[in-house]
Amino acid sequence: MNGADALIATLVANEVTACFANPGTSEMQFVAALDGVPAMRPVLCQFEGVATGAADGYGRIAGKPACTLLHLGPGYGNGVANLHNARRAHTPIVNVIGDHATYHRQYDAPLNSDIATLVKPNSIWAKSADSPDTVASLAAEAVAASYGPPGGPVSLILPADSAWLPASGEPVIARIPVRPAPASEAVDAVARAIKAAKNPVILLGGQACSAEAIHEAGRLSAVGVTIYTDTFVARQPRGAGGFAPKKMQYFGEMAMAELEGVDLMVFTGTTMPVAFFAYPDRPSVLVPEGCATLTLAERAEDSVAGLAALANALGAPGQGPTQPLKLPDAAPTGDLNAHLVGTSIARHMPEGAIICDDAVTSGAGVAAATLTARPHDTLALTGGAIGIGLPLAIGAAVAAPDRKVLSLNGDGAAMYTVQALWTMARENLDITVVIFANHSYRILNIEMTRTGAGQAGPSARKLLDLGDPKVDWVALARGMGLPAVRCTTADAFDRAFEGAMGQRGPMFIEAAI
Amino acid sequence: MNGADALIATLVANEVTACFANPGTSEMQFVAALDGVPAMRPVLCQFEGVATGAADGYGRIAGKPACTLLHLGPGYGNGVANLHNARRAHTPIVNVIGDHATYHRQYDAPLNSDIATLVKPNSIWAKSADSPDTVASLAAEAVAASYGPPGGPVSLILPADSAWLPASGEPVIARIPVRPAPASEAVDAVARAIKAAKNPVILLGGQACSAEAIHEAGRLSAVGVTIYTDTFVARQPRGAGGFAPKKMQYFGEMAMAELEGVDLMVFTGTTMPVAFFAYPDRPSVLVPEGCATLTLAERAEDSVAGLAALANALGAPGQGPTQPLKLPDAAPTGDLNAHLVGTSIARHMPEGAIICDDAVTSGAGVAAATLTARPHDTLALTGGAIGIGLPLAIGAAVAAPDRKVLSLNGDGAAMYTVQALWTMARENLDITVVIFANHSYRILNIEMTRTGAGQAGPSARKLLDLGDPKVDWVALARGMGLPAVRCTTADAFDRAFEGAMGQRGPMFIEAAI
Repeated sequence: MNGADALIATLVANEVTACFANPGTSEMQFVAALDGVPAMRPVLCQFEGVATGAADGYGRIAGKPACTLLHLGPGYGNGVANLHNARRAHTPIVNVIGDHATYHRQYDAPLNSDIATLVKPNSIWAKSADSPDTVASLAAEAVAASYGPPGGPVSLILPADSAWLPASGEPVIARIPVRPAPASEAVDAVARAIKAAKNPVILLGGQACSAEAIHEAGRLSAVGVTIYTDTFVARQPRGAGGFAPKKMQYFGEMAMAELEGVDLMVFTGTTMPVAFFAYPDRPSVLVPEGCATLTLAERAEDSVAGLAALANALGAPGQGPTQPLKLPDAAPTGDLNAHLVGTSIARHMPEGAIICDDAVTSGAGVAAATLTARPHDTLALTGGAIGIGLPLAIGAAVAAPDRKVLSLNGDGAAMYTVQALWTMARENLDITVVIFANHSYRILNIEMTRTGAGQAGPSARKLLDLGDPKVDWVALARGMGLPAVRCTTADAFDRAFEGAMGQRGPMFIEAAI
Repeated sequence: MNGADALIATLVANEVTACFANPGTSEMQFVAALDGVPAMRPVLCQFEGVATGAADGYGRIAGKPACTLLHLGPGYGNGVANLHNARRAHTPIVNVIGDHATYHRQYDAPLNSDIATLVKPNSIWAKSADSPDTVASLAAEAVAASYGPPGGPVSLILPADSAWLPASGEPVIARIPVRPAPASEAVDAVARAIKAAKNPVILLGGQACSAEAIHEAGRLSAVGVTIYTDTFVARQPRGAGGFAPKKMQYFGEMAMAELEGVDLMVFTGTTMPVAFFAYPDRPSVLVPEGCATLTLAERAEDSVAGLAALANALGAPGQGPTQPLKLPDAAPTGDLNAHLVGTSIARHMPEGAIICDDAVTSGAGVAAATLTARPHDTLALTGGAIGIGLPLAIGAAVAAPDRKVLSLNGDGAAMYTVQALWTMARENLDITVVIFANHSYRILNIEMTRTGAGQAGPSARKLLDLGDPKVDWVALARGMGLPAVRCTTADAFDRAFEGAMGQRGPMFIEAAI
């Protein structure tokens, strides 16, 4: 029994049973130790951003952390962008970062770097297990810390000698923290303010977008409170049978126009809404002038309890309005666009599907079309770092092997973590990938004028256009081992998507829009 | 004239004329400003690790920095691994990292993160231009700092409002630092020690591996000093007409065996050699017991001057031994392996070629075969973060459009930055890519036993093997817009490689080994 064995024993004892990995020499003891513990599922990713994004998708669906296995500072670095997203999603993740043996660090070998500093911006907890005796207890501490509340990625640095030296194999059980309910005074203050307001809004985020919380929010909707969610939510149930809150608009001026006349905003599981980017002469804070603000539940608090208590205090009925099941009457036809893709998804997506949305400018069309589709969950891009849609789907599919997973991606976004396609094939995951191929950073063409930067000239266009050459996405997907088709019409897409929903295993569809 | 214009004006005035970019909304002013300055060449990369690796290749060949354009913390994060390599190569790079407008940072919008902390481990200088008036002067400071000596990546954070607000367009000229020559006392001490030693060795690294320095080292070889270089050198001339130093072995025990009997090691442009990784019961420091050590030139000092002074002090002749031009007699035949690939490269590689080596376990075969090939430069993986071979080649080809660039890659390594293939096609760069497809993290199979982790069982094998499914590299390359062939025999490889050397523009060859 060595430190690596002790680490895995403690992880598994705390229900960390999936490992998204891209190991190197300094992680070989951990890799070898996996052979002794079949309860831990190793999933190889050919790039660390796939591993961290997959761990995010796993955590959002499983409600518990996966671990990653990363190779020193550079390996962790490759995972940073999706860990940024995971931090914003408050997803529990235990990053295990291999390091040089403790005595070897002083020699500053080529792969040496300041891991402790590198992990800081995206870790809610970070420690190095500098002796084998500390590995198990720090692993338990790491697991507990990852739950927060409100949770997030943690970083456990594992020097090679701590992994290979003898250690006790007794697993240490983590003390998983519990979310406290909001104080009753906060609930009462919000109840009084809502009664006094003409046009009150509750804004939901994080855990306040769980199925239970959305149910309570629906009750509040029944007594005249308008319910919004954050623009980007880590995990949200949608479709028939549930309450459908509004969503904060992405562009600040559109959000402000929609909120005109609102005189009270109550934050639940989230904070004051702000513009995604700053623009010259446009607002940063998306709260109407003169509108009062209150907090019902902090991100770390139990929003479900807070919303239920508020609904009871306001005498709300036991059930708010719910979405009907209403599927499109007919298959879409004609030229393909994002809305028609959404029509096909609404027609064929099975109950319990999980949508991983990194579709950027194409996402809204799908979201509109699936409002009354069969009940499903949507995982959004919480941190703005595109390139998460493929990895998220890997993690979701590993966490919920009986649910169909859809991965919706802009072509620009998908390219960041294109290596994920290989892992889908290797693990035979039940994922249908859709790439919206417009061969452009379309969003940037929109943002360019909004930032006041004017029209793109020849140099600028070279940085926005992806059409020269056009990526052959079907070739890429097949090259990674996936069955793949390209659809240029809505009719063809509908047939391909129906086929994908009727089978198990990975399928890739390029939607040429 | 705004801050973005001022930034580009100052960069160009200081000969920073290539920009490897993956911009987002917060960088739109910089993108727009490029239209006014055709002297700055924008090169779009569909992943930031390609941009930073390309800037590294550019800097190593051009001897001056390129800039990158990166999208906030996550965009920089994606570039970290190759910036780690660049830091180890001491390559000047000016990273321009867009950030939220200064007044917007406080709202912690989704893309907000602690950029200042994130950049620390891999920046030798980092500042944020928090007002438009500081942009030009900080840009000049950044350029100067990137030169070191010994140089490295710097980080200039550019908030969106500093880019869009008015600024003076007067460019600020950077004060480029000069490397000091080593003190004559250091040279004298080394000369005395060498005269007294039985078996002296000089170890070269960094600038001490430049053509001028290698020439001086060859003179020292002529008076009985054994010359080694570091295992991994940022840039080194090789082949006919030059002196061929030995190379420190990668595996410590092999290095120690080779160094047996050495009683003096003199470090020039580098420091004490250490093992790449630690292993149980193997040495970290690769200096024989009882061997004296001295430093001729620190990394920041002028190794050329130091070596020349030492050669003069020891009465060395004006010219040391040089490699003959000796090409393989015949085309290789039979099953393909790395050595036979090297034979073909030696046969057909033109004078002045640049080899970007990320070939891991296949690299040694090529290096051995090209020792007496036509003169060329080799750029190695200095920091151990695989995934640099394709990006390096982009930068080298942009810096030296008249030289043939070879990019040699292990298949596992190439996958990290596979997006680079698209940029090669888009820019029609004169690069021949060779992928050694063994469908395995071969090096890890070797390292597994060396670390004492034993034989891989079923779980461990899942993390080392890349053969299920096998990536179809030709499909990937064609999907990214490159002409591509797969070669399964040495004969076929020789014909394909000869064809690639006889044409201009990008070509992709999968060497099925």
